[in-house]
Amino acid sequence: MEKHLLRRQLAAFLAEDVGCGDLTSESIFTPEQTGAARLVARQHCLAAGVAAVAAEVFHVQNEAIVCENCLADGQEVTPGMAIMTVRGPVVDLLKAERVALNLLQRLCGIATLTSQYARLVAGTKARIVDTRKTTPGLRLLEKYAVTVGGGGNHRYNLADGVLVKDNHIAACGGIATAVARLRQRVPHTIRIEVECDSLEQVADCLACGVDCILLDNMTPDILRQAVALIAGQALTEASGGVNLDTVAEIAATGVDLISVGAITHSAPHCDIGMDWL
Amino acid sequence: MEKHLLRRQLAAFLAEDVGCGDLTSESIFTPEQTGAARLVARQHCLAAGVAAVAAEVFHVQNEAIVCENCLADGQEVTPGMAIMTVRGPVVDLLKAERVALNLLQRLCGIATLTSQYARLVAGTKARIVDTRKTTPGLRLLEKYAVTVGGGGNHRYNLADGVLVKDNHIAACGGIATAVARLRQRVPHTIRIEVECDSLEQVADCLACGVDCILLDNMTPDILRQAVALIAGQALTEASGGVNLDTVAEIAATGVDLISVGAITHSAPHCDIGMDWL
Amino acid sequence: MEKHLLRRQLAAFLAEDVGCGDLTSESIFTPEQTGAARLVARQHCLAAGVAAVAAEVFHVQNEAIVCENCLADGQEVTPGMAIMTVRGPVVDLLKAERVALNLLQRLCGIATLTSQYARLVAGTKARIVDTRKTTPGLRLLEKYAVTVGGGGNHRYNLADGVLVKDNHIAACGGIATAVARLRQRVPHTIRIEVECDSLEQVADCLACGVDCILLDNMTPDILRQAVALIAGQALTEASGGVNLDTVAEIAATGVDLISVGAITHSAPHCDIGMDWL
Amino acid sequence: MEKHLLRRQLAAFLAEDVGCGDLTSESIFTPEQTGAARLVARQHCLAAGVAAVAAEVFHVQNEAIVCENCLADGQEVTPGMAIMTVRGPVVDLLKAERVALNLLQRLCGIATLTSQYARLVAGTKARIVDTRKTTPGLRLLEKYAVTVGGGGNHRYNLADGVLVKDNHIAACGGIATAVARLRQRVPHTIRIEVECDSLEQVADCLACGVDCILLDNMTPDILRQAVALIAGQALTEASGGVNLDTVAEIAATGVDLISVGAITHSAPHCDIGMDWL
Amino acid sequence: MEKHLLRRQLAAFLAEDVGCGDLTSESIFTPEQTGAARLVARQHCLAAGVAAVAAEVFHVQNEAIVCENCLADGQEVTPGMAIMTVRGPVVDLLKAERVALNLLQRLCGIATLTSQYARLVAGTKARIVDTRKTTPGLRLLEKYAVTVGGGGNHRYNLADGVLVKDNHIAACGGIATAVARLRQRVPHTIRIEVECDSLEQVADCLACGVDCILLDNMTPDILRQAVALIAGQALTEASGGVNLDTVAEIAATGVDLISVGAITHSAPHCDIGMDWL
Amino acid sequence: MEKHLLRRQLAAFLAEDVGCGDLTSESIFTPEQTGAARLVARQHCLAAGVAAVAAEVFHVQNEAIVCENCLADGQEVTPGMAIMTVRGPVVDLLKAERVALNLLQRLCGIATLTSQYARLVAGTKARIVDTRKTTPGLRLLEKYAVTVGGGGNHRYNLADGVLVKDNHIAACGGIATAVARLRQRVPHTIRIEVECDSLEQVADCLACGVDCILLDNMTPDILRQAVALIAGQALTEASGGVNLDTVAEIAATGVDLISVGAITHSAPHCDIGMDWL
Repeated sequence: MEKHLLRRQLAAFLAEDVGCGDLTSESIFTPEQTGAARLVARQHCLAAGVAAVAAEVFHVQNEAIVCENCLADGQEVTPGMAIMTVRGPVVDLLKAERVALNLLQRLCGIATLTSQYARLVAGTKARIVDTRKTTPGLRLLEKYAVTVGGGGNHRYNLADGVLVKDNHIAACGGIATAVARLRQRVPHTIRIEVECDSLEQVADCLACGVDCILLDNMTPDILRQAVALIAGQALTEASGGVNLDTVAEIAATGVDLISVGAITHSAPHCDIGMDWL
Repeated sequence: MEKHLLRRQLAAFLAEDVGCGDLTSESIFTPEQTGAARLVARQHCLAAGVAAVAAEVFHVQNEAIVCENCLADGQEVTPGMAIMTVRGPVVDLLKAERVALNLLQRLCGIATLTSQYARLVAGTKARIVDTRKTTPGLRLLEKYAVTVGGGGNHRYNLADGVLVKDNHIAACGGIATAVARLRQRVPHTIRIEVECDSLEQVADCLACGVDCILLDNMTPDILRQAVALIAGQALTEASGGVNLDTVAEIAATGVDLISVGAITHSAPHCDIGMDWL
Repeated sequence: MEKHLLRRQLAAFLAEDVGCGDLTSESIFTPEQTGAARLVARQHCLAAGVAAVAAEVFHVQNEAIVCENCLADGQEVTPGMAIMTVRGPVVDLLKAERVALNLLQRLCGIATLTSQYARLVAGTKARIVDTRKTTPGLRLLEKYAVTVGGGGNHRYNLADGVLVKDNHIAACGGIATAVARLRQRVPHTIRIEVECDSLEQVADCLACGVDCILLDNMTPDILRQAVALIAGQALTEASGGVNLDTVAEIAATGVDLISVGAITHSAPHCDIGMDWL
Repeated sequence: MEKHLLRRQLAAFLAEDVGCGDLTSESIFTPEQTGAARLVARQHCLAAGVAAVAAEVFHVQNEAIVCENCLADGQEVTPGMAIMTVRGPVVDLLKAERVALNLLQRLCGIATLTSQYARLVAGTKARIVDTRKTTPGLRLLEKYAVTVGGGGNHRYNLADGVLVKDNHIAACGGIATAVARLRQRVPHTIRIEVECDSLEQVADCLACGVDCILLDNMTPDILRQAVALIAGQALTEASGGVNLDTVAEIAATGVDLISVGAITHSAPHCDIGMDWL
Repeated sequence: MEKHLLRRQLAAFLAEDVGCGDLTSESIFTPEQTGAARLVARQHCLAAGVAAVAAEVFHVQNEAIVCENCLADGQEVTPGMAIMTVRGPVVDLLKAERVALNLLQRLCGIATLTSQYARLVAGTKARIVDTRKTTPGLRLLEKYAVTVGGGGNHRYNLADGVLVKDNHIAACGGIATAVARLRQRVPHTIRIEVECDSLEQVADCLACGVDCILLDNMTPDILRQAVALIAGQALTEASGGVNLDTVAEIAATGVDLISVGAITHSAPHCDIGMDWL
Repeated sequence: MEKHLLRRQLAAFLAEDVGCGDLTSESIFTPEQTGAARLVARQHCLAAGVAAVAAEVFHVQNEAIVCENCLADGQEVTPGMAIMTVRGPVVDLLKAERVALNLLQRLCGIATLTSQYARLVAGTKARIVDTRKTTPGLRLLEKYAVTVGGGGNHRYNLADGVLVKDNHIAACGGIATAVARLRQRVPHTIRIEVECDSLEQVADCLACGVDCILLDNMTPDILRQAVALIAGQALTEASGGVNLDTVAEIAATGVDLISVGAITHSAPHCDIGMDWL
């Protein structure tokens, strides 16, 4: 995410939480009083968004805040471990604390859950990828956390990827017509992906040279048949019914990609606090 | 939330998801093709944000979209039940779908979890309230969902409530000094709340006429003693260690308020889909 | 006021006054020509907004401008006294001059008038507070000037304070119902204040435990009775008919707060100019 | 002022006053409850900004509010006279009330004061014009109120008019050089005005064909000599020391324009209230 | 382009041209005076942006303006032909005129030039596509005009397409490494295109399965050899040295795409005026 | 153009071209890799917007980029000459490259064409000036490039200049009435210019003391008569039918100004590239 856009977004988040000032802290501390604190994990997790997001929140609040000893994104964190140290005017540390923690807890949660999925498919050719089921306003940050956890990114938005679904196909009367229309309009830099519910649809896709085939809600057995049928003529993506119990078996079918909405929409928040030094 | 501000925020969410257009749908459908679909729950939940948020997403995308049969916020939803029906240009329905669902799933999740807490404290004088542990950018929507689930709202931001924490007290050398400084600066329309870790601190609060006392991380037994000591001279709020297993016992101590971060930061997302008619 | 929001607002003020450039100065001076000037008072007043606002205007115009010897806010100023010195590119000093002066003249005017009211109530328990009768767009700056002049702030906006007026009461059928509805909806961090026109209404307020009572347009004699009736069970605020001639007598009735619209809406502008060195 | 820009500005003013909602009114009224009220003058004044500004505030808050019987701008208002009637959802009327009144009171005040000056110069060729001493953020509205009161507008900002002052002249070494530089750079659509302190400077201006001459802080006697010297070769503007006591005598000197900062920076606010029907 | 974003951009264009009002027209016409005019071509061209852009400019200025008889985008226009008729308040027609014409003249120019290129490659498999050499701020509108003229769109921005250039290759030490790194990071929905200067580089691309090959600044003879070598294993795009004299010969080499910067950066503006009825 | 406004506009241009990141470069380069490149002209032209615009694009992308050896605006450039050198993180140089070049090529093109016109009128009293036929969004930059090429600026927008056209005159029933209305409304700092099609209209203008007369679409012969008739009582501007072949003859008629739409709407883009060092 471009830094000036990130900073503008973080400024909006701070405005939401701080409003026109921190009544409590501004009444008690002078602007000159400084202090230091550590962001400390209370559980096992994967660090994500430490220097790139949480530290930036503190900097947007006040450029004079120093963020030190930031853990690298992707590093494993154990309970009690310091994720980073912040130093600066106490009032500004307190104003930035909640937004920094709220974001960090979410991003670490996403990275941690993604890495659990990724570990379960290790050794197969399958890669875990995200979906558009992200928190409104946080898509780029959440997709970044997915990569920290070892996943890949699906399209960012409706304008930079093509995914033909059942209602698109129905509207055209068939996959071939839909694909032909897309080839007329879509930049050649973008692949054409079609969602299939059956092996018949997969065969239709192959007939018109589709680039990627999304195999939706298929059993592992059907997935395996689909992969065999496709035989490398298109990328294969499995989706639907994916969870920590099923992902390994799905990966074993030989698909290239497994998309998982849960890694963004249902990642449990990691418990992280700010302890004053 | 003021409607023009909500609409501006929803427009930003749509811009994030749609980018400069829906390549797939705009290549396949004409702008004139219309259709209808229903948002359908796949699980039990409480409706929240239906007309006020999800329908507004569709309207922001295109004023011509009609949203019908919206369930009232707070209504119980069973699997398969339609939450609302949308009708209009297919391209616009598809562009608004994901943002509407992403928001609705989150808000229904928060209302549903809040109502579980609220039911567990029913019959006591305790009220469940939220915290500032909300998703950055979604605070007002999430706090609204809390009220739909039967909870109350704590302060919206740092500027419209006062909460004195341990580091504020430490900086002043004591609760009395902190409260005195606040009385000099804070509008008289706002109450002064102080977080206490011990009965000694509670006694200090009473001595200087604090309006609300946050009893943090206390056992039910200590909570009960604190409530007895306070004896109605201040509002009492319990926090820390609150979950679905402990909340009833905490409520039984006689506190006025129980604040729960989990109702916003960890509410599971409700499964809701859009089915074409 | 958060600094990044203040700077954005000042940039908008500069854009309003400068438009797409200073035709006169840019035609005559090169960007490199530097100079210095002093902002000088032409009358007695209280300094307000010197470093926090006027200097910031110059910095927003050009970070390279140096503002020196700023008087502290709250300091008494006599005619001919320099309020601050500015040094930097002449073109930028000229572009920032008018906005800096327009703001400073208004803020010093508000602080000066507030201090006149404050002096008149000194020795009583009454505190002068402001209202929402501020200049649109300048509320936070004007409320800050009120505090510089020794006044206190009433609520900042409709969302961070509750004030029940006659038409609210009429709509509910009585004070008790209105207060009950408010207790259901309003965060516990915010006090409930009710405007009363009569001692009967004051009694109603006391019966339902209202936190603050606004005694509107009452004579000193009735005010005194109201204060006696309330007897410390609620904060008391007097409003209506307050001016420099009446404020001392009103304060002598024993009210806690006296709100005065005139300190913001009718403070005479202080005469301050910029003299080149 | 272009309507979409005015509406954006009014929306910002409403956001400042309403924040994230009107806690009091939203707790007491339902969104469906409607009512009506009249904006009523408590003093003599000139109407300004009624349909164009105050009504627009109500419309920005809620398009469904109906504003009826708006007095025409420029009409004389007597105490007790209704300036306009508003009808619509009570909550929205209450949210818009304060901003509408704050603006109306200021604009009526400016128009009223301007008309007092204008009356005093009636029968002479002099026209009262405003200055850049306007409230930051309100320039266009305040300049509009000046025209309602019978005054004219000076330049709107530094980019659409040229006014050479003493420090510009000093920097160039003389009026002739300054004017020559300006002729090189300034669009031919804009006149060149030079501020003069003496008849010698006036003569310099005439020698280089200046379009307008600002006669600053001159006595009526010197003004008369300057007008005679200029003899129609340039427009003449008097400024400095202008007040209700001196303006007639200044106008009698034969100047074309008299600029008065006080009509915007020191116009007393008119007393106007909102009475419910 | 999403309509709400387009309207915001057009509003900014109008603000640039109108400033705080049309001094001339507002002084002469009342807001109620209405009129009608036709946008008329003074030369042969292809219509582009008529209803979608020019009419929208008039609507953004004033929703009450009616735009009738808009030519369809892509239609051939002859000198003297009316492109559309506008009807509404004269002041608003005059305020919108210049922005509408400035945009229309540019978009028609781009469509017209693109169609000349497209006609020259008709009958070959080659398609004319645009580049990122568009006017800053107008990319989506200009890319739309390209499609009206029969061209296709290359990537919209750096985030929705991959194009590896010589300095990327140099930084990695070779095409294979660059492509491997991209496969790790780039969403699978996006193709990988590599710019090649020689047949050796083309062979490297084929060896690592690149999706598209940009053949830069090659002679028709080398292009033909490259196409033969690639033999359908990747899409081929020719660029460099393309003009109306060379494009047919380049197309004859068998490439899939020919990208032409000139269709956006050097399209001559079409002469179109507004004639009052 | 005020720098903070320019920077905001350049940031928007970068956002348009970069989107949410440069997929290619960010996959291949680390953020730490630095490099240097030169912007090099491939043709003869006049430098315009080098330090003020192109360098600023690089700085907005990343303040750490150093821009060295910028040619002064107005300097003649020969093929192969370096216009400036840029040094910094490779990823940021690549992200800023296209926007910087797109702007520079346009601004140099405008300056170059303007200077061709200016050379053709050298030795006469005529000055070349621009029009409102600029690219939407780029007016101030394009008008700046005109001055670099030796031209002058006409009004910036509809609010800072008055130009009465035929439909204004028709609406009033005559030039005298139009001018009288304008004198009532327009600030005295702005001249009144009237467009004339005939010598009769010119005479009407002189009769009411118009400041500037636009002689539209007149032959050189009629222009000469008009200039003689006006005899210095008003500024004269010729427009219509102006091109590189006719401009000298038009200038020879003795007009003060010649306005040329082509210098902004049809200036050919200069060929400039970025070569890595």
